[in-house]
Amino acid sequence: MDGLPNQTLWYFEYITPELVQAEGVRRVLYEGQTKYQHVQVLETGPFGRSLVLDGKTQSSEADEWVYHEGLVQPVMVAHSDPKRVFIAGGGEGATAREVLRHQSVTEVVMVDLDKEVVDLCKEHLPNHHKGAFDDPRLTLLHEDALAYLDNTTELFDVMIIDVPDPLEGGPAYLLYTEEFYGVVKSRLGPGGMVVTQAGPAGPINVTEVFAAINKTMARVFRSVTGYRTYIPSFGTTWGFAMGATEDAPDLTLLAPDEVDRRIAARITSELAYYDGVTHQGLMGLPKYIRQAIADETRVITKANPIYAI
Amino acid sequence: MDGLPNQTLWYFEYITPELVQAEGVRRVLYEGQTKYQHVQVLETGPFGRSLVLDGKTQSSEADEWVYHEGLVQPVMVAHSDPKRVFIAGGGEGATAREVLRHQSVTEVVMVDLDKEVVDLCKEHLPNHHKGAFDDPRLTLLHEDALAYLDNTTELFDVMIIDVPDPLEGGPAYLLYTEEFYGVVKSRLGPGGMVVTQAGPAGPINVTEVFAAINKTMARVFRSVTGYRTYIPSFGTTWGFAMGATEDAPDLTLLAPDEVDRRIAARITSELAYYDGVTHQGLMGLPKYIRQAIADETRVITKANPIYAI
Amino acid sequence: MDGLPNQTLWYFEYITPELVQAEGVRRVLYEGQTKYQHVQVLETGPFGRSLVLDGKTQSSEADEWVYHEGLVQPVMVAHSDPKRVFIAGGGEGATAREVLRHQSVTEVVMVDLDKEVVDLCKEHLPNHHKGAFDDPRLTLLHEDALAYLDNTTELFDVMIIDVPDPLEGGPAYLLYTEEFYGVVKSRLGPGGMVVTQAGPAGPINVTEVFAAINKTMARVFRSVTGYRTYIPSFGTTWGFAMGATEDAPDLTLLAPDEVDRRIAARITSELAYYDGVTHQGLMGLPKYIRQAIADETRVITKANPIYAI
Amino acid sequence: MDGLPNQTLWYFEYITPELVQAEGVRRVLYEGQTKYQHVQVLETGPFGRSLVLDGKTQSSEADEWVYHEGLVQPVMVAHSDPKRVFIAGGGEGATAREVLRHQSVTEVVMVDLDKEVVDLCKEHLPNHHKGAFDDPRLTLLHEDALAYLDNTTELFDVMIIDVPDPLEGGPAYLLYTEEFYGVVKSRLGPGGMVVTQAGPAGPINVTEVFAAINKTMARVFRSVTGYRTYIPSFGTTWGFAMGATEDAPDLTLLAPDEVDRRIAARITSELAYYDGVTHQGLMGLPKYIRQAIADETRVITKANPIYAI
Repeated sequence: MDGLPNQTLWYFEYITPELVQAEGVRRVLYEGQTKYQHVQVLETGPFGRSLVLDGKTQSSEADEWVYHEGLVQPVMVAHSDPKRVFIAGGGEGATAREVLRHQSVTEVVMVDLDKEVVDLCKEHLPNHHKGAFDDPRLTLLHEDALAYLDNTTELFDVMIIDVPDPLEGGPAYLLYTEEFYGVVKSRLGPGGMVVTQAGPAGPINVTEVFAAINKTMARVFRSVTGYRTYIPSFGTTWGFAMGATEDAPDLTLLAPDEVDRRIAARITSELAYYDGVTHQGLMGLPKYIRQAIADETRVITKANPIYAI
Repeated sequence: MDGLPNQTLWYFEYITPELVQAEGVRRVLYEGQTKYQHVQVLETGPFGRSLVLDGKTQSSEADEWVYHEGLVQPVMVAHSDPKRVFIAGGGEGATAREVLRHQSVTEVVMVDLDKEVVDLCKEHLPNHHKGAFDDPRLTLLHEDALAYLDNTTELFDVMIIDVPDPLEGGPAYLLYTEEFYGVVKSRLGPGGMVVTQAGPAGPINVTEVFAAINKTMARVFRSVTGYRTYIPSFGTTWGFAMGATEDAPDLTLLAPDEVDRRIAARITSELAYYDGVTHQGLMGLPKYIRQAIADETRVITKANPIYAI
Repeated sequence: MDGLPNQTLWYFEYITPELVQAEGVRRVLYEGQTKYQHVQVLETGPFGRSLVLDGKTQSSEADEWVYHEGLVQPVMVAHSDPKRVFIAGGGEGATAREVLRHQSVTEVVMVDLDKEVVDLCKEHLPNHHKGAFDDPRLTLLHEDALAYLDNTTELFDVMIIDVPDPLEGGPAYLLYTEEFYGVVKSRLGPGGMVVTQAGPAGPINVTEVFAAINKTMARVFRSVTGYRTYIPSFGTTWGFAMGATEDAPDLTLLAPDEVDRRIAARITSELAYYDGVTHQGLMGLPKYIRQAIADETRVITKANPIYAI
Repeated sequence: MDGLPNQTLWYFEYITPELVQAEGVRRVLYEGQTKYQHVQVLETGPFGRSLVLDGKTQSSEADEWVYHEGLVQPVMVAHSDPKRVFIAGGGEGATAREVLRHQSVTEVVMVDLDKEVVDLCKEHLPNHHKGAFDDPRLTLLHEDALAYLDNTTELFDVMIIDVPDPLEGGPAYLLYTEEFYGVVKSRLGPGGMVVTQAGPAGPINVTEVFAAINKTMARVFRSVTGYRTYIPSFGTTWGFAMGATEDAPDLTLLAPDEVDRRIAARITSELAYYDGVTHQGLMGLPKYIRQAIADETRVITKANPIYAI
């Protein structure tokens, strides 16, 4: 009988309608509906504790460090001196955690619409946030990120967009539009950089939203660098896209040695995923992804949004 | 997005290694390990709240009344005047509930090994027990049913064996042996009758344990009546077997009219499943089940137990 | 590795959107689209060879004898002298096989719309038809059953409606309407009887179409008898409904002894499922099914069809 | 009904016992048992035609070009002048296809144990082999690769080990041992290089076999380079390991420009996956993989084999 009962409960994540990742569930820590979205906090066999919003895994203990270091560290390391950082979303607290590792950082403004989700993460995902919510440099606000940026006059060195996929009817699809990137750009200080999670980027789904997000950002920012890494709990390679203002460096030109030097100089704790060689791997996009971006013609706007599956 | 997140969580019940009943799960009310077994209390989409022990559904809101009336009422109605009733298992409290409907009943002794399971049922399955645990006629004990019967000198009019399937390594397999039925018989008063849940009884699994349980009881009791009904949440037709001492009537000879008369005379509340016509359907075993019992040669003993899948 | 590869391939049958029966598949003998419907001929682990139309199992080796004897024999045995029999659908040939067991039968007209399905059954399901297609008493036509009946002046002793569930957009939903039953009645000879498969009839799905089919037939026929049996490969108890003209007997009044006598007198081969006691079980509808039929208010018409899930 | 029937058939690939990749199956082109292994040729919804051996996907139309270019091209491009190439396994013909793109190649010896598998691939996977089996430079043998190498005196410039995972009881586990790599090394000409598929290399399974294969090769070859890419149809990032003799170059030192120059000079057709930037991405192993290899202590030998899940 050993092990059997654990395997009677399964979580199905639909990567596409004909492709499902099924994960044995050991415990359902929470399931419910907030004002904005459906939330599950699951303890899965293969990935440990996972936050699932509207049926999509946001991050899991077993690989959240790949996702969060991959999202945060390249842009933080590429910036010459990141002091003020903005985070949209990031409810698990792990994005803030990665930002706060940097000694240079003096202030982090994190705007996550859904207080209920953040509170659930505080309670159920201690290995995600690792105390980041208690750091005095963090200001946590619960409002619409776009509204916040529209109404502020503050400027940021680094901005990180860590919101759910642009699902139809979901709370986040407007945060992937040309209009939104225009607002973001207006809030970047000199040499400022933005990075966004950018959806799946594997051979069968790179054209779903990743290519269009890159194309859209390229209409707003001087240089855009798409990159990707494999996140097992997402059931696919995952994409990110970095946009830089006039004076910011190109991510792909950052040498491995320089990455390692900056990490050593700026971060006292040990990173699990990111370093110079990892950077090189992250940025070395396979030919088919570069081709997909080059071929992409869609620009995402408020009037013509694009939705993930 | 409506409905989707609910369907991301599934409960798999293996009917056989190549046959699975998958049920959408809306809520996991409890999952854990007691001293004796693995317990899940699930709220499933198709069947409402279910008690699952060691990966096997014990009963579900949507059809527990079919199971519990089917288990309890035929033998209670067939007995001429059931006063003292013994229940082995029955942790949900619904077996006691059905017994306690009978005005003739003066005392019910319910012996369920696993206090933790009973407490979970009290808390999470109110629509199962419906207050049965508060009836002053009920004595609830937590010990081994076999040990209890070995050590008592009490006699019962009706005895009901409502324990989990005889799973290898599980807590219940000894309660399906010839030796156990001998002890049961010794505790039956004049005209006494026993009924046991007896495992799956469909075309593809009637020979798993049902036929052997009937054969084994036939070595101990004067008359044995196997019967069955379909329980959707079990994913199969389910069998029961009644054993009667010298003076007890044959279940199959009880006329529908007489069943209805006795129900009217003895029970004030309304039954949902059982009446005279239902009785006739329950007892009208398809030819292949009768054949399987006739062909069965295995006798279940302590030395040669039989296990369900 | 033994057994594993077989279990990598699964057939999912959605009983409801939140209830799936998953069957290990050993071999896919055919998959394709005919002019009328999607067809799969699968060899499943638990049920052997199965015919699946539009995602719904029609019959499987492991229990087709339960379905086909249950559909055909009660009405054939109840009729005093069935000579001319009409079958709508029945592509596997097993319905005709059951009819042709009766020595009294002189002519069977089987009208199945989909020649491709029938040809696939002839090739892949020899254990279903067992040579029935070669019986000289059988006339096989491929046209719409309703059109055939509208245009014929022939009368039948027994008519058997063995077509797929009334699926939206499927080929068969019109064969469950009041209008259709009117045409059927006009083609029944003296003492004539009709039986139709009538959809799922378990505790959670008896109101899907079964109750409404019974109600609809009751507007056309003098007496209607709904009955049911459990079919594992359908993942549920399955219902049938018999309608009789003025002079035909009530199925529920047929005594077990009389059933056995008629079988012995009329059929030389051995039935696997049906006999007198089986008949009694089939007709002994649980209280909740009788209640569902009594409570049903929907009448199925061409203008107001009802669809199965 | 549109689309539904296609999704009733699913292929389950167990990545781990608690992690399953489920793929909708449109057609089963073949399922059977050869002398050596269980074979399925499936047409799946997400990945097109797939070859599955012993329940493990070997390659799929939708991403076989990632796998096969990733396996073959780095080592072919890294070698200064590959003329004679050896392939162990590679039944789909796509490994040979990639080798034969190189104008320098004069002879390919492909030794695949299982003729039945190769014949099935010839018939059912035309988009995999694309005529490679007809190239006069190819010699196809069906025998044990180890026995072949033991008995030959030929030397090769490049050797490619493209055999199934080291499954317990499977045909290939001996081709991952120190002893085997010793034999391989003895068959490499001056500057010779070998590459092997090396199992899953994601965050949750990099220690399954990948790290140990790298460690084992490092006992035999002067330099070993592990690298990886994400293969969706495998449900995980996949690893490869290259071993070089004394005089061969380090894969990680090959500059993107040089890769592109060599491809242009040596291959006339268009590669879909591999080029200089892709090379850099392939070789840029994340920190955790490098750490896993560094921490690995197991050496795979005939006496102490290691098995994949």
